[in-house]
Amino acid sequence: MPEPNGVHPAWLPPEAFRAIGSRRTLVVGDDNRTRTVRAEVAHACARYGGALHGDRDGAHDLALVLDPEAGTGPEGFVLSRRDGVTTVVAGGPSGLLYGLFEVVRRGEAAFGADLPAETHRPALHRRMLDHWDNIDVHPVMGQVERGYAGGSIFWRDGAPRGDLARVRAYGRLLAACGVNAVAVNNVNVHATEAHLLTDRLGEVAAIAAELRPYGIRVHLSVNFASPIVLGGLETADPLDDGVRAWWARTTERVYETIPDFGGYVVKADSEGQPGPFAYGRDHADGANMLADALAPFGGVVHWRAFVYDHRQDWRDRSTDRARAAHDHFAPLDGRFRDNAIVQVKYGPIDFQVREPVSPVIAAMPDTRLAVELQVTQEYTGQQRHVCYLAPMWREVLGFRPWGPDGRAVSDVATELVAVSNVGDDPYWTGHPLAQANLYAFGRLAWAPGLDPADVLDEWISLTFPGDTGRLRRTLHEIMDGSWRTYERYTAPLGVGFMVRPGHHYGPDVDGYEYTPWGTYHFADRDGVGVDRTRATGTGFTGQYPQPWSDVYESLEECPDELLLFFHHVPYGHVLHDGTTVIQHIYDTHFAGAEEAAAMREQWEKAAGDVPPELHAKVRELLDEQVRGAREWRDQINTYFFRKSGIPDAHGRRVY
Amino acid sequence: MPEPNGVHPAWLPPEAFRAIGSRRTLVVGDDNRTRTVRAEVAHACARYGGALHGDRDGAHDLALVLDPEAGTGPEGFVLSRRDGVTTVVAGGPSGLLYGLFEVVRRGEAAFGADLPAETHRPALHRRMLDHWDNIDVHPVMGQVERGYAGGSIFWRDGAPRGDLARVRAYGRLLAACGVNAVAVNNVNVHATEAHLLTDRLGEVAAIAAELRPYGIRVHLSVNFASPIVLGGLETADPLDDGVRAWWARTTERVYETIPDFGGYVVKADSEGQPGPFAYGRDHADGANMLADALAPFGGVVHWRAFVYDHRQDWRDRSTDRARAAHDHFAPLDGRFRDNAIVQVKYGPIDFQVREPVSPVIAAMPDTRLAVELQVTQEYTGQQRHVCYLAPMWREVLGFRPWGPDGRAVSDVATELVAVSNVGDDPYWTGHPLAQANLYAFGRLAWAPGLDPADVLDEWISLTFPGDTGRLRRTLHEIMDGSWRTYERYTAPLGVGFMVRPGHHYGPDVDGYEYTPWGTYHFADRDGVGVDRTRATGTGFTGQYPQPWSDVYESLEECPDELLLFFHHVPYGHVLHDGTTVIQHIYDTHFAGAEEAAAMREQWEKAAGDVPPELHAKVRELLDEQVRGAREWRDQINTYFFRKSGIPDAHGRRVY
Repeated sequence: MPEPNGVHPAWLPPEAFRAIGSRRTLVVGDDNRTRTVRAEVAHACARYGGALHGDRDGAHDLALVLDPEAGTGPEGFVLSRRDGVTTVVAGGPSGLLYGLFEVVRRGEAAFGADLPAETHRPALHRRMLDHWDNIDVHPVMGQVERGYAGGSIFWRDGAPRGDLARVRAYGRLLAACGVNAVAVNNVNVHATEAHLLTDRLGEVAAIAAELRPYGIRVHLSVNFASPIVLGGLETADPLDDGVRAWWARTTERVYETIPDFGGYVVKADSEGQPGPFAYGRDHADGANMLADALAPFGGVVHWRAFVYDHRQDWRDRSTDRARAAHDHFAPLDGRFRDNAIVQVKYGPIDFQVREPVSPVIAAMPDTRLAVELQVTQEYTGQQRHVCYLAPMWREVLGFRPWGPDGRAVSDVATELVAVSNVGDDPYWTGHPLAQANLYAFGRLAWAPGLDPADVLDEWISLTFPGDTGRLRRTLHEIMDGSWRTYERYTAPLGVGFMVRPGHHYGPDVDGYEYTPWGTYHFADRDGVGVDRTRATGTGFTGQYPQPWSDVYESLEECPDELLLFFHHVPYGHVLHDGTTVIQHIYDTHFAGAEEAAAMREQWEKAAGDVPPELHAKVRELLDEQVRGAREWRDQINTYFFRKSGIPDAHGRRVY
Repeated sequence: MPEPNGVHPAWLPPEAFRAIGSRRTLVVGDDNRTRTVRAEVAHACARYGGALHGDRDGAHDLALVLDPEAGTGPEGFVLSRRDGVTTVVAGGPSGLLYGLFEVVRRGEAAFGADLPAETHRPALHRRMLDHWDNIDVHPVMGQVERGYAGGSIFWRDGAPRGDLARVRAYGRLLAACGVNAVAVNNVNVHATEAHLLTDRLGEVAAIAAELRPYGIRVHLSVNFASPIVLGGLETADPLDDGVRAWWARTTERVYETIPDFGGYVVKADSEGQPGPFAYGRDHADGANMLADALAPFGGVVHWRAFVYDHRQDWRDRSTDRARAAHDHFAPLDGRFRDNAIVQVKYGPIDFQVREPVSPVIAAMPDTRLAVELQVTQEYTGQQRHVCYLAPMWREVLGFRPWGPDGRAVSDVATELVAVSNVGDDPYWTGHPLAQANLYAFGRLAWAPGLDPADVLDEWISLTFPGDTGRLRRTLHEIMDGSWRTYERYTAPLGVGFMVRPGHHYGPDVDGYEYTPWGTYHFADRDGVGVDRTRATGTGFTGQYPQPWSDVYESLEECPDELLLFFHHVPYGHVLHDGTTVIQHIYDTHFAGAEEAAAMREQWEKAAGDVPPELHAKVRELLDEQVRGAREWRDQINTYFFRKSGIPDAHGRRVY
């Protein structure tokens, strides 16, 4: 198995395969199509003394059966145990691999009591990671845009890294948590990166070759203006015949090189990227053109709905960035091709620690939708703070836009996409504990109903196989509530975006307040928050179906944690728990910073339970988190004290 | 004369030499030492039909006489006119050249009525421009740190530009306004640039060779840690014998290559640069070590006093960055060698549009002091806004730290240094009108008593020789008051630093408020400003001698324009003119933005008076200035309205 030198094994250390490796395993099915599964088993057996064989009559403890007639679909599998034999039956190689990793996850438990047949199928069709990796080091954004885990695992300084063992190891980790698609380059497609589509396609093919054995298809972010910048045409108009022919020809060549290529990812008419607007066309025109080029080969286009006016005038309170995606896309529902997927960020703004679920998700019943999450912690601590995001994702996926009896987000979307948090860091993700976010993303995309604490348990069991239970308790103490802790010490009550402009790390309450980015809080000496009501504000609440439209509209019913997202209120406004907004700000910020300090104390308990260098690394990061949490606490508290003039009811220190 | 292709001639267009070029000029003196002067005259005569000769008996209209016995010193000259002959007598080649340029400035007037002998000598011994140019393009700061005029005229992308004609033309422009020293590289000496001292010294020598004919000596910014990073020593301790020997040897080699080398410029223990503190030594130890290495060759070290804690805690109100230079340097007075010059920024903070004069200037009677200005407009519009800085510099140089009967700053300092605003831009300075700042810097360094409006007149006459008077009036309308206009629409009442962090362009009131940089305004819902009094504040006022110490301490006597620099006052505090602070903020910001708009209107009148491309360029920049001034107005007004809740008394629009 690929184990690149000096790289942490994450959730696939050799010990995770002990249960399988010490047993006799039968693999049934076409040699070529079961190759990855057999290699995994053989490798484990070589270490732990078990055996791999292909003889149905031989005695065995585990049977892995590839059966195209199994009826599980290509990715599903049936798991059962009877008469001392655990059996996985799968309809396709990917399903068999997922079944194998399910057995890995269960460990000894997979070989205990009988198990009636359980059918496993992924809830979401495509479970995809977008890499915002650049080939060239971007002068501002670096090798990986919003990357906090070192460089790219694909490129370095303008060229492929060549370290394909690492790419293969990455594919293996992803397969073990259920991810089946990777977009290899940044959605902001710069000059060099545009060439991946044509003369640098070989670099994409090399990555695809490493990921293919793990059931992962490769996608490519493309520049909408490619016909001009690569093809020498004078237009990129999606209705122009020459342009359409160029894309068709170019796409055909892509599939000649990468037959299982996944498709294109496009950020168009967004933050300066080119798009169909320049030609008087709309997003459906643009997406459909690419969909048509991809359709003959079974490819898809992911068309991002992250479109808004990033040159807004802060003086203009009628323009509301939160409305933008819905304003642009909802009217286009029904016009997108079947292989054009509209990719919607989970919230209406931009990956904040707390946002309402995007109303676009409920507004396009006749469109295939991908919900986009951000595993890389741009706004949630940048992999210097522990922030286990699964509880947030669980809430998003479980949100029911039409009320408690309606469908959930995970029923509406067909895909879950996330920006990857992986780089060439030895721990993959910068912060060792941020591995859990990557793992949890894959698992929730497979089974959105999973309990985040259970997913964390899985990750702990796999990653730290020697644990006696103490480490598990410590990690739960630290991680289970870490998202809410992060929320507490940062921007309060859903208001968001009180971060340092540019790099987005650390607090700057007014940092974006007078900018063109559409991210305002409107704090003055009397109150704070954005009035997005229909009655007196921007009308954003009207983009939701009932009951949420009325719930968010109502000052009384609006959930506290989103209060300032939807309403501008005086500092004395009383929340549901009886405290005022200003007192809530003080209380949560003191509490959040204390919780961060408590995390650091908890971690000391883990000193003997993890490798010393991992312990030291996390301790160092927790020092920074404690410092950062205090900085947030003090800046936010001081800012609002200076504005409101209202002292903390408990007399704590506000600078 | 060097006239690089496509580069604006600035204040030395051929027409500026018409009066000389059409006359007969006698040059007397050693051929080699008068070469530059003769070349200037010959070139002018070739164009305008005059004659240059060296025969004392021939008839002539102008005599330029180099006479080592003249008693003018090397840079002075005596100008007179009698019997139809204008005569310049100078004791050295530089003086003769300055005399020639004085005649150029006077034009036809130099050949009119008789003129009794006038002796001209520079008031300040060294008139120096510091280039913050990098060899490599710095990832954040670029080719020229705080440069707003394109790239460097010396380096591009890691290598010398090779375009030495441009360097020579630069030297000529500088000589024509009296500058006699140039430091060629950034005071933040990065890895590559450190090598200019040793293996890349040839690049410095090449520049020196071009500037030498114009009486300009070249200086070099050096890294205090050079013995380590270049010499392979284990320490840079200034009292270590090995270190001292390394500097002595290295300096000797510098002088072998550049015999008239000026000396070193050092930023030490400042904003992360290395310095003597690491070895338990102080700034005098550090500066003296370098001074000792330079002394045998007549060189000097410029040791910057810009030392402060840039990792301050914003919560700590007792630490005051304004105090830092005085705290560090005043106790060292008397300990610096004669050839160690302490270089002090004009204000205690950092080149703001309004600061009090630095108290360090009055605190080191036994030390040679250079006052440092910033011609490059980092905090004054970045050469996108018209901001003629001579009126500010005039105020600084004329400030009398010991009261009206005491000496002025220009009497105390022996040198005037400024950060250059020049780059490879076709107009040299980005904004064509910013040339006037470069010109005025040289002229005020020569004669600090000059009226800024007269200096502007000189610049206009030279730069636009065809003007009938209309352009002169227009430019005075636009430029005379432009510094105060800029002050009006930006940070009010001396409070400073309400700029966007990092690039420092445009407003961000709280941008530096919660940072480690020590630049705070402490605005809350009740008031604004920094209490720097002895009675209740940081005690900074105590660093001034009387009467200023008491004037600044007193809320009643403190000049309005510095009120918020020295005092924290309520918004209702009444200024000397009877308006409140908050109303003053509104009034000045509305007025400043209107004045910017009026500048743009004025400029339309100049349409026929300047080359069309220059007119268009300035018009485009004025559009940006008008936009920028409105942005400042609205952000500042809105910020203080939100905080104070006090509406504008005149009911104007505050967003």
